[in-house]
Order: sequence, then C-alpha cells, then structure tokens
Amino acid sequence: MNAPQRSVPVLPSSRDALLFTPGPLTTSLSVKQAMLHDAGSWHWEFNDRVRSIRERLLAVAGVQRTDGWEAILLQGSGTFGVESVFQTCVPHEGRVAVLSNGAYGERMVLMLQHARIPHVVLRTPEDTPNDPAALDTALAADPTITHVAAVHCETTTGILNDIAALGAVVRRHGRVYVVDAMSSFGAYPIAFGDSGPDFLISSANKCIEGVPGFSFVLCRRSRLLECEGRARSLSMNLLDQLKGFEKNGQFRYTPPTHALLAFEQALNELDLEGGITGRADRYRRNHRALLEGMQRLGFRSYLPAGVQSHIITSFLFPADPRFTFAEFYRRVAERGFILYPGKISQADTFRIGNIGRLFEADMRAVVTAIAEALDEMGIRP
Amino acid sequence: MNAPQRSVPVLPSSRDALLFTPGPLTTSLSVKQAMLHDAGSWHWEFNDRVRSIRERLLAVAGVQRTDGWEAILLQGSGTFGVESVFQTCVPHEGRVAVLSNGAYGERMVLMLQHARIPHVVLRTPEDTPNDPAALDTALAADPTITHVAAVHCETTTGILNDIAALGAVVRRHGRVYVVDAMSSFGAYPIAFGDSGPDFLISSANKCIEGVPGFSFVLCRRSRLLECEGRARSLSMNLLDQLKGFEKNGQFRYTPPTHALLAFEQALNELDLEGGITGRADRYRRNHRALLEGMQRLGFRSYLPAGVQSHIITSFLFPADPRFTFAEFYRRVAERGFILYPGKISQADTFRIGNIGRLFEADMRAVVTAIAEALDEMGIRP
Repeated sequence: MNAPQRSVPVLPSSRDALLFTPGPLTTSLSVKQAMLHDAGSWHWEFNDRVRSIRERLLAVAGVQRTDGWEAILLQGSGTFGVESVFQTCVPHEGRVAVLSNGAYGERMVLMLQHARIPHVVLRTPEDTPNDPAALDTALAADPTITHVAAVHCETTTGILNDIAALGAVVRRHGRVYVVDAMSSFGAYPIAFGDSGPDFLISSANKCIEGVPGFSFVLCRRSRLLECEGRARSLSMNLLDQLKGFEKNGQFRYTPPTHALLAFEQALNELDLEGGITGRADRYRRNHRALLEGMQRLGFRSYLPAGVQSHIITSFLFPADPRFTFAEFYRRVAERGFILYPGKISQADTFRIGNIGRLFEADMRAVVTAIAEALDEMGIRP
Repeated sequence: MNAPQRSVPVLPSSRDALLFTPGPLTTSLSVKQAMLHDAGSWHWEFNDRVRSIRERLLAVAGVQRTDGWEAILLQGSGTFGVESVFQTCVPHEGRVAVLSNGAYGERMVLMLQHARIPHVVLRTPEDTPNDPAALDTALAADPTITHVAAVHCETTTGILNDIAALGAVVRRHGRVYVVDAMSSFGAYPIAFGDSGPDFLISSANKCIEGVPGFSFVLCRRSRLLECEGRARSLSMNLLDQLKGFEKNGQFRYTPPTHALLAFEQALNELDLEGGITGRADRYRRNHRALLEGMQRLGFRSYLPAGVQSHIITSFLFPADPRFTFAEFYRRVAERGFILYPGKISQADTFRIGNIGRLFEADMRAVVTAIAEALDEMGIRP
C-alpha cells in the first residue's frame, strides 16, 4: 500500500501529470482558475453562490425542493459526508445494515464501530454485487434494523451495485436508505423515486470535477427533520448544517471558499457538457478506449463486464515474474500519468480511473505509456 | 446575524474586495496561484509536500519531533480540528473543564454536549479574561476533571486569554491542556514549554494566511498515543490520522490537495516575513493604524487595551440613532472592504479584523471608507 518512491529526480514538466485516480482527479484549468479569488464567507455575494450551488445540485440530480429534497454541503472529504449521515440520523435505539463488497463498505462499518452504533454487515465477495435477496431476508428477520447503507460504485474494484434493486427491498420494508454515491454521482443517472435513496452522499472532487474540500448530501427533508436531537457530533451535525443554511445562507463553520468557487465553475462545465448524460457518455467512451488498449497489451480486467462500471477498472497483474507494481507505477508516473497506487482489493490488481477532465486521447496516451513501461521492464504480455 | 442584503447591483471590480474578517481572509495572489495544479494525493511528490508541511508547522511553533511533538493535519474547518481532540482524546470516564468568555468557548461546550462528554464550564464576562484562580479552585475541588480547554484569542470580542497562566494551573494539577489557538497561532509567539498546551489547534486560513480546507493540531505525541480506543468518530480520529501519516505519508481520506499546495506557499511567505515575529509585527502595526483611525472618527473600542489582541477589534456602535449596522456594512462593502458582519457579542459592537494579507495602508483605506459611509448616512461622530 505504500506509495512507490522515485529512484531519480524528475525535471519539472510544463504540464501537470494527468491523474487516473477516482478523485482527487484532473480538473480543467478554468475550474482551478476560479480559485484565484478570496471570498468572504459571511458576505451576501458568497452566500448567493452557496445557495445557487445547492439548487443546482438538486437540478443535476433531477429532484426538486418542492418535492421535499435538500442538498447540504459539508466541509471535509466524502468520508466526512457519509459519517455525518450516521452520526446525525441513526437513533440511539437504531441499527444499521451495511452492504459491503469492498473497502468503502468496510469503511462504513468502521464509522459505526467508532460511534458505537449497532449494525449488521451483509458481505458479498469483491467481484459480486450486493445481494438484494439476502437483504430482503435480513430485513424480514430483524425489525430492529432502521437503516440500510450501500455503496453504488465500490472503487475497491470498480464494481457497480444495483442500488435501485436494493432500494426496492429497503422501501418494501419501510427502512431508511443511505447510498454512498461518491464516485458515481455525475457518472450515472440515479433514480430518486420510490426506490431511491433517502440520503445520497457524494463529494466535490469526483464526477462533478471540482477540487476536494467538501462533500454533499442529497436527502429527503422529512427524513432529516426527524433526526432532531440524535447527532453525536457538532461539526458533522447534518441537520444543524441545513438549519444554518436556512437561517442566514451560511455554513455554520468556515467553508472551503475557494473549493466552492471552483465547484460553481465545475457545475457550469457540467452543463456545457450536457449534464449527467453528456458526462456519462464521455466516461463511457474513456472506459472503452482504455479497455481496448489494455486488452491489446494483453491485460485482463478483474471484473466480469456485466458489473464493471465506467468509472474505474481493475486489471490483473501480468503473470510475468519481472512485473512489480512499484516499478511499473514509477515508470508510468515518470511519463506524466499517475495511476492509482493503492491496492485495496484482495486480488493482485491495479486500478485505472477514467473520470475527471480526461478524454479518449488521454486514455490512449496512458496505454502507450504503459506499453513503454512494460517494454523497459522486459515484459512482453 | 443575517448578512445584510445589497440594495443595488454592484459592478464587478478589477480587484477582489479586501476581507477584514478573522479568516477566511485575504491571501496573497501567489498563495492562490499555487492552487493552479492538480496533485495526486497518493503520489510520492504530494506525500513529500505533506510531510514537509508537517515538519514546517513544528518549526513555526518552535518545537521538535525529537522532543515528542507532532503536527497532524485534518480535513474540514478549524471547528473540526477542535472537535477531533475531544472526540479522540477524552476517555469515557473523563470530564472536561471549559473556560469560556465568548462564542468559541461556548462552541466547545456544544461539542461536548453532542458527544455526551461530561463537562463543567467556567465562565467570565466577554470583556474579562479567563480566570486562572477560578480554574485552580475548580481543579482542586474536582479530581474527575481530566482535560482543560481554553480559547487563546476569543474572536467574539478580540479578547486575549492568558493561556500560559492557565497552563501553569493545569500542569500543577496534572491534567491535559487543550488550547484553541485558531486565530492566534502565527500572530503571537506561543510557549510550548511546561505550562504550554498538550494539544493546540489552529487552521490553514488564519495567521499562516492560507486558504480554508483543513485544520492542524500540534500535540505531544505521548498524550495522543494514550488515547487508543477512545475515538467516537472515524473521520475525526486524530490518532488514526497520525498513524496514517506515519504508515505511508498519506491522509487516510481525500485531502484538500489544492488548499495544501496553497498552504505550502503560505509557509514560504511566512518565512520571507521573518516567521511569527515578523508577522506579529505587521499585525501589530495594522492594529495600531486601525485603532488610531477609528478613534479619530470617534469610535471607541469595546475592550480595555490590556486585554485587546492585535487580531480583531470590537468597536461600539455610534450613539447616533441613524446608525444601522446593515446599512453601514453595505456602504463599506460597496467600496471594496468587507467587515465582519456577524455580531456574536452581547454588546452592540461590530468587529474589524486585521490579519491576512493586509498592510497599514489597507487599514487607513478601510477607515477612509468607513468615514465616507458615515458621512453618507449623515452621522457625525
């Protein structure tokens, strides 16, 4: 899991390396340039922009405030956003069922352990989607389960879980449904209807293509209002955060002003691309270009095609004993392409993301860099 | 507390308005330009910079790792940093004594209430520093108090509390000492000796003059290591955050990469200014220029000079009935100067900060704008 160290100093490049990671990711220059301003976080102009960002997130999701939806922004990384839902919403007599097939499901378990919130975990193997039938059985058997939590795209492997099928089960049993859509919101249309999430969490630095600094929670207002008095943390009190926005338009505590200005520009660029539909098209094309190129080099993807997302792909290590990931990573990085160095799957795989300000030409370029690196390492796939 | 609304649209200026707020504050253009890059948060280059930032914070504080000190960075605002200390460090049988003379002391009380941590509050009026003798009595009377928490500069009014005198009492009684030095770290030298804090919290967007996105905690390593198993929150688990840095140089969860690049540049510029000594000099000169100008206009400061910090100053409203803060704020803002709109003191005061990338000429300019605004409002002080 340690990041490989470079062997020789690298001369500064005229361009930033491209990030093939699932966030923080490569953003447009114009998104970064939006940060060249200091905004007063109590000032009306900034509050207007925060309000606009909250409205626009609802529009991107295809839901409306008049139908009872809210968008709440919270300082910190996406993990803070997910934890804020548990810390704020689960009553002291509640119990959470977590569906897990990777590191992000397990991270939710850690959150619940820290907060001493009772929970059960429904696990499937890393290459197998969450099982709606098992959830059905568990909910039928245990009426004390109040909340169900799932991860849409588990970036441990890149597997896509069927959140609509799970949601139908949750709804039938009348429980509260929490979805971690960190890396998928913006890359896939998500249905917020009857079987949709009550709470959906994503973050600024994923498929909206902003910079890191805050997460956002889209939720049913009524579901949040019923959480009064439950919060175990002040900073992560999501209900109070909503009340703060409604009282005076402000974050309760210092917001990442520059990241918010960048996010506003990122929303502009999402609109220009045709919203989620347009962006999903580009990511799908990126994924196809990557897969074709990697297959030509002899790489095999870890997941079966039916459950593979177009967000991030796990490739099996080449069988050649000369392959070490550390050297491979370093040689590709020296060419200006940053792969995802963390290996969190149980399988011997490495991951390449294709979200962020990347295009098909970039995917072909990273494949070329990979081919060169293998060649230098004497590996013929 | 509501931000005043503008009456007429304002034409865009060629320059950003200057922020006379105690953070987020005005930063240099070069600090903001450092954000024009996307960094991979798993990549060695970025990890090297995080390690360097942590080392440099210790150097700014005048302490060393070899003497048992650590600098830990945490995503979110300064409030998240303060809360992370309570959430991580107070044992379940512990009790915290909070010294409060303003909103930030009361905020610590709210944190403890949320986390169901037993606590006592030692209050003094807003214009009166925390009382070391009262603390001495309280600690002598109650051996169950494990932690003492104080705010160095309470920006509610701008009052400076004597954290060394309080620290001597805490040390004599052998308790753990937590200091919120959010707005003071970098503006005043702080002694980390025997009577110094065990945990000191500040944030990126205060006197180091970075942009918001993370807080940092300077702490005695031994004091943190003894907190194993106590944390009530995963995201705010400060001990695990340290372990993450030590394991692979990384934040456990997505860091605000751009804010960190800005902070590195801000540390460079702090060095150029001569460290805390040089910066404190500028802030002191800023404060003197502000006070002289405001006194010439007939304003009186709320606090007695002996307890007034050179970070932020509260001025009493003019007696003239034509004065309303909302109109005053708007007229000054239209001239490109953003005052601190929130009134959180119990007294009828408004606040002007003089930290951030501001110089004496800026203080004279805001006084001129204030004079013009009063003149337009028909107020002769």
